[in-house]
Amino acid sequence: MKEIRSTNKSGIAHFVHLCTKYGLKKVVCSPGSRNAPLVIALDEHPAIETFVIHDERVAAFYALGMAQETGELVAVVCTSGSAMLNYYPAVSEAYYRSIPLVVLSADRPEEWVNHGDGQTIVQTGVYTNHIQWEGSIPETISCPSDIEPTVKEAFEAALTNWRGPIHFNFPLTEPLYGTAEYEMEEFQVEKLNSESETISESELEQMKEIWSNSERKMILVGQLDKQLAVKNALKVLGDDPSVAILVENTSNLYDQRWVHCIDRTLAAISPDEIEAFQPDLLITLGGAIISKRIKKFLRESNVKHHWKVGFDFPEMDTYRKLTRSFEMSAVDFLKHLNDHLTGLPTSNFGAKWKQRDFEVQARLEPFLMTVPYSDLSVFQLVLDFIPESAKIHMSNSSVVRYCQLFDPIPSMSYYANRGTSGIDGSTSTACGAALSGNGLHVLLTGDVSFFYDSNALWSAHLPKNLRIFLINNEGGGIFRIINGPRESDQLERYFEAKHQTKAEHICKAHGVEYMSAINFEEIENQMEAFFKEDSESPKLMEIFTPREENNKILDQFFAAAKGAE
Amino acid sequence: MKEIRSTNKSGIAHFVHLCTKYGLKKVVCSPGSRNAPLVIALDEHPAIETFVIHDERVAAFYALGMAQETGELVAVVCTSGSAMLNYYPAVSEAYYRSIPLVVLSADRPEEWVNHGDGQTIVQTGVYTNHIQWEGSIPETISCPSDIEPTVKEAFEAALTNWRGPIHFNFPLTEPLYGTAEYEMEEFQVEKLNSESETISESELEQMKEIWSNSERKMILVGQLDKQLAVKNALKVLGDDPSVAILVENTSNLYDQRWVHCIDRTLAAISPDEIEAFQPDLLITLGGAIISKRIKKFLRESNVKHHWKVGFDFPEMDTYRKLTRSFEMSAVDFLKHLNDHLTGLPTSNFGAKWKQRDFEVQARLEPFLMTVPYSDLSVFQLVLDFIPESAKIHMSNSSVVRYCQLFDPIPSMSYYANRGTSGIDGSTSTACGAALSGNGLHVLLTGDVSFFYDSNALWSAHLPKNLRIFLINNEGGGIFRIINGPRESDQLERYFEAKHQTKAEHICKAHGVEYMSAINFEEIENQMEAFFKEDSESPKLMEIFTPREENNKILDQFFAAAKGAE
Repeated sequence: MKEIRSTNKSGIAHFVHLCTKYGLKKVVCSPGSRNAPLVIALDEHPAIETFVIHDERVAAFYALGMAQETGELVAVVCTSGSAMLNYYPAVSEAYYRSIPLVVLSADRPEEWVNHGDGQTIVQTGVYTNHIQWEGSIPETISCPSDIEPTVKEAFEAALTNWRGPIHFNFPLTEPLYGTAEYEMEEFQVEKLNSESETISESELEQMKEIWSNSERKMILVGQLDKQLAVKNALKVLGDDPSVAILVENTSNLYDQRWVHCIDRTLAAISPDEIEAFQPDLLITLGGAIISKRIKKFLRESNVKHHWKVGFDFPEMDTYRKLTRSFEMSAVDFLKHLNDHLTGLPTSNFGAKWKQRDFEVQARLEPFLMTVPYSDLSVFQLVLDFIPESAKIHMSNSSVVRYCQLFDPIPSMSYYANRGTSGIDGSTSTACGAALSGNGLHVLLTGDVSFFYDSNALWSAHLPKNLRIFLINNEGGGIFRIINGPRESDQLERYFEAKHQTKAEHICKAHGVEYMSAINFEEIENQMEAFFKEDSESPKLMEIFTPREENNKILDQFFAAAKGAE
Repeated sequence: MKEIRSTNKSGIAHFVHLCTKYGLKKVVCSPGSRNAPLVIALDEHPAIETFVIHDERVAAFYALGMAQETGELVAVVCTSGSAMLNYYPAVSEAYYRSIPLVVLSADRPEEWVNHGDGQTIVQTGVYTNHIQWEGSIPETISCPSDIEPTVKEAFEAALTNWRGPIHFNFPLTEPLYGTAEYEMEEFQVEKLNSESETISESELEQMKEIWSNSERKMILVGQLDKQLAVKNALKVLGDDPSVAILVENTSNLYDQRWVHCIDRTLAAISPDEIEAFQPDLLITLGGAIISKRIKKFLRESNVKHHWKVGFDFPEMDTYRKLTRSFEMSAVDFLKHLNDHLTGLPTSNFGAKWKQRDFEVQARLEPFLMTVPYSDLSVFQLVLDFIPESAKIHMSNSSVVRYCQLFDPIPSMSYYANRGTSGIDGSTSTACGAALSGNGLHVLLTGDVSFFYDSNALWSAHLPKNLRIFLINNEGGGIFRIINGPRESDQLERYFEAKHQTKAEHICKAHGVEYMSAINFEEIENQMEAFFKEDSESPKLMEIFTPREENNKILDQFFAAAKGAE
């Protein structure tokens, strides 16, 4: 037993202690009064590290970034009322990326909800559409075993199989600030493990048949943490030239024989060739796919079998071809493939994809050496300068799409909030990741995402290992690079939503080192100082690009990829 | 008939036209792609005025402020995915203040939800806990009557009886940017009216008996728009000295004979006098009550009858004494009282309350003339300088509480987000109100509220008739003025959450004129320039107060009110 000081509300004290049993180590707290018992218990507990962030929207994305970086669950705690609604954007992102974010919301006792007290809303069920588990914990208990089954159930929901966010609600009565000493049980952290489904022998036989009868096999990998075991298993499969392996930079997988820039390669497949590039058997691993083109390509294809692999969203049928969903880890599934299903190559389908990728790369080389100053060339330059092994965070809309056009660097890791693909929390997520990780973290962001989430910088926990490239094209550049809006009368005002805000003063307000650039030379000249580790704060380089030119140059890129005259 | 250009999606085109029939005039749009048909329809419609705000959290509070100021419904429109989650804080505020905020959320077609497309979440039902109506509108219809009953039902839910926010979800397919011309019916705006319940003759008799048998009658008014009819009806009742009328500044009611500073007066009632100040009959009108002391006082009292008046939350039993809830407007109810129930005064209960209020005012006068520089004296000074007829917006936590300590000015109007009492959208709400109103609007805010909502200033629609007093005491001053946290080890880090951020650079970033002050003299010297109408932007004065002194001086205020030695 171990003596621990905590709140005098026994339910909360034991709850916090139990959380550490299932691996909780970090909590982002937002100030409030009703949540005082939770804050006291968390602050006093020796196994918990706390952070304080005022804006709950920001706080939850910080926590998401921490969970993304560490692979462990991270909690947020807030007061009663609308505070928890500000968590919701990050909760939904966590839900669609299966990240174990734990929401702890203080509440009034149920009998006081909707009776006119301040900071009171109907908190239970708020996240119902996007949560893996939700429930309440009483403030007073007689012994830890009163709540342990509930806590365990919740953490299992967060951490095993289809992982994701969970929500504990805490009805709390006044007084709120009392403390007490407890004798707490000492325990080892209990690891909760996922369990892959088993595949029967007869099904394995069927799969083997499908595999050998499929001339053209494609493995498409979406968002995935860096996993050496997945990489190694895929490498074996990739030896078979009938297997095309397509990855995105957010797959965090790299091999010379795989296709990494899907849109670039697809652009070089002419309409009469499409059929030859369609797979018979499609295997998908990992989370979200960024490329809209590959989604369209596969939806319109003649895929005969689509095997989806993963615990999350087993019914998700992105290409409308789903024939079997394997609720198991990518590693377990690939092991089955490698153990049982490989055979003689049935075609050169995979080699053909990679060949096309090489061709388009070669074709683009002269074009890319002469691209005028624009979003495209700025991304090319900046990506080139980022030091080895950095972790790259991409904001949504045009940034993440531009980044798909350049081959990823094997030593780097790539992240983006592709669960909901919102523009709402990219900076906060990057801050949270950098804060709980080592080494250099680099955020690439656009102006709309950056200003949207500028409160990310209103933080006592700004990570000095973070560098931000802000590509400012004065509005939603995405709307000039997709079809439809650019011909619309409403383009400038509503879609692009042009603005003139600059980041300099936002940085000054929050103590972030600021640089700016308007051409290649200014960018290059400042790179050394920018990446130097000489500062107690993050650094931001704001790069201004020509709003009305960017889309034309991107069009030229795709024309060049296509080999158009 | 009238020719109107719109989106080529007929459901959307007719929907927008129908909205104008029920009074929609203003819409705050946030950029996106999926919502293009809505944006095109709104932009092209001659009866709709649009605003563009990027951050949906801010956009919804702007709309809330507009609805608050105009008394009419205001809509927000966003793209699919997490965008709508950022509306939620304002939606819940609208719900608890019965403000008709209309959410228009673009969505993907239902069959594509949870199938891996970007910016897709489960949008239907997200607001279920805090919405008056929710439903979907199809993108294609054959004629307006296909959707008119639905639209009418929704607007009735927003605008009549228990009013509040409503949510339309729009599943939309690509392409999104097409336009078309329509022959639209010309119509008059149809006014939807609330219907007060009727009170039977026999019940009126009973009420009359209760009224005459109640020696001590109290009318307590919560948050209310300025309503002359309510004021006049209350004035008649106030002629009866057995009726105590207690209002807060957010009631927007003023009369010399009423008690306007409830906490101040309550502080001067000693424990042995409490019983004599308790009502037998309590009548409550309006929305939220700010004073925690009066809630406690009434909960612990011997109230025999509590009549709650209003359409909203008919079961809300704030004082645990509710005997009858009248689902009717305050005016209609007061008419009943004045027509039927008045009789001979049964006591001098009301006069006694007012007498005590006069006493405490007199007692505080010398104290207030010598208060050292602090939050309290700064509020006193600033409130004194605000020009006549201004509309005052108070942020939550300590600001709104300090403002309760000084008698309101009859020509002014007072607003605060007391639905959920969140700190999340005060600046945006004030901006929205100022933007759609005439005359001077003044926001009084604290540092935590201000920085939380600093994106309010990231707007192409900054109202030049807005002035902001930012009282910066470097953290959550509220936690030093309530009991509990101030003795806690966690005070400075978690509750007060001390920070050093200043507003100067935030203002510079967004083009807001900035002044600062650290003493009485600096405040006074800048007042003239501050209120001068010579600027194309709002102005902000940041007043720094001594963090560690403020609470002591507030304690002295209450001690002086009490008449303590």
